Amino acid sequence: MREKAVVLLSGGLDSTTCCAVAVNEGYEVYALTFSYGQRHAVEVKQAEKVAAFFSINHHSIIDVQATVFSGSALSGLSGKDVPKGRDVDIPAEIPETYVPARNILFLSYALAYCEKLGARTIFIGVNAVDYSGYPDCRPEFIDLFRKMADVGTKTGIEKGFDIRTPLIDLSKADIIRLGIGLGVDYSITHSCYDPDENGRPCGTCDSCSIRKKGFIDAGITDPTMYGS
Amino acid sequence: MREKAVVLLSGGLDSTTCCAVAVNEGYEVYALTFSYGQRHAVEVKQAEKVAAFFSINHHSIIDVQATVFSGSALSGLSGKDVPKGRDVDIPAEIPETYVPARNILFLSYALAYCEKLGARTIFIGVNAVDYSGYPDCRPEFIDLFRKMADVGTKTGIEKGFDIRTPLIDLSKADIIRLGIGLGVDYSITHSCYDPDENGRPCGTCDSCSIRKKGFIDAGITDPTMYGS
Repeated sequence: MREKAVVLLSGGLDSTTCCAVAVNEGYEVYALTFSYGQRHAVEVKQAEKVAAFFSINHHSIIDVQATVFSGSALSGLSGKDVPKGRDVDIPAEIPETYVPARNILFLSYALAYCEKLGARTIFIGVNAVDYSGYPDCRPEFIDLFRKMADVGTKTGIEKGFDIRTPLIDLSKADIIRLGIGLGVDYSITHSCYDPDENGRPCGTCDSCSIRKKGFIDAGITDPTMYGS
Repeated sequence: MREKAVVLLSGGLDSTTCCAVAVNEGYEVYALTFSYGQRHAVEVKQAEKVAAFFSINHHSIIDVQATVFSGSALSGLSGKDVPKGRDVDIPAEIPETYVPARNILFLSYALAYCEKLGARTIFIGVNAVDYSGYPDCRPEFIDLFRKMADVGTKTGIEKGFDIRTPLIDLSKADIIRLGIGLGVDYSITHSCYDPDENGRPCGTCDSCSIRKKGFIDAGITDPTMYGS
């Protein structure tokens, strides 16, 4: 029987590549996607396409009550604008698009799901190189989260959790090269924080800018409408 | 302006006493109650009564998708029985009523809510003396959770979280004495893991047994139907 792993899958470029790593390593993947009133709700649909692309049989969409998150510019409820056209080479302060405790909450659901499944492995596509400056994407956070889980859960005490972050030290270009090597079709991924009503990316938010630069650096053409 | 605090309020004896401490210290309380398909869904109604008792203006019920938790005997979906009539003086292994990653998930929501409110204080009524042997009720867990939050969130980095556990070192009898001193009406609290369809406690599950013994040790009569 294959070992089970819970994979956090947003439908973006990073989580899709991370999912490809888990599939490639032979895990039986249990994908978790979160709906939290985000502006980019198109993500959830993309996540379903990604799960289908990898023939993942277990994909749960979890509805997190949006009111908890409504302080972030990524929430449609916030009234704040998503910043556009910034220089993404210079990591600034924690940006407006920071979502309160997002990865903590998502990883907490993953812990609970692991315990239910009898699994101990979680994949999360966080990246601390070409990223938006979020505190919950850094290695020191992931390390402390695992330590906390190993003390605070039955699975952690008995077996220890393995929180896999295969992208954490990679540049965006390296992530894209890794995914292409694993056969990822990036045309089904979505990165924009502020797509239009048809799900088309804005091309100028931090996430679009980082994605564009990554494809250029990798010398690969983005198969989506990004950059056009 | 009063300082805000998020209080995890299940409607049980401990969380109600913990809430009384927060109210007594002058915090503006934002209560969070979770509905997670628990057998003791009557808890949610009791939590509403408790919030009304303390004249709390901000009380949110968060619906956590029950499927994540369905491995526990506390979940109505599990098919497992709640253990009855055990000797609660002897902390055994982690019991059947353990709910996967429950306090981690609840505290994660509390972090997100704090960040939205601009608060840094969370009250949780965990207790490591007369308790059911859950790993997520111990001081070492709470300490690691706070450390993780202080690295993984904007509020944690900027101000540091304060996770208050006023009951953690108290016996059940001491908790009851503390609450009585603060004017708590325990007739509105609920403790049973496996109440009947009218919300009446079974009297023999671990939680009922611990509650009964606490009132006897405190020399106080339980104002509910417990023990009758």
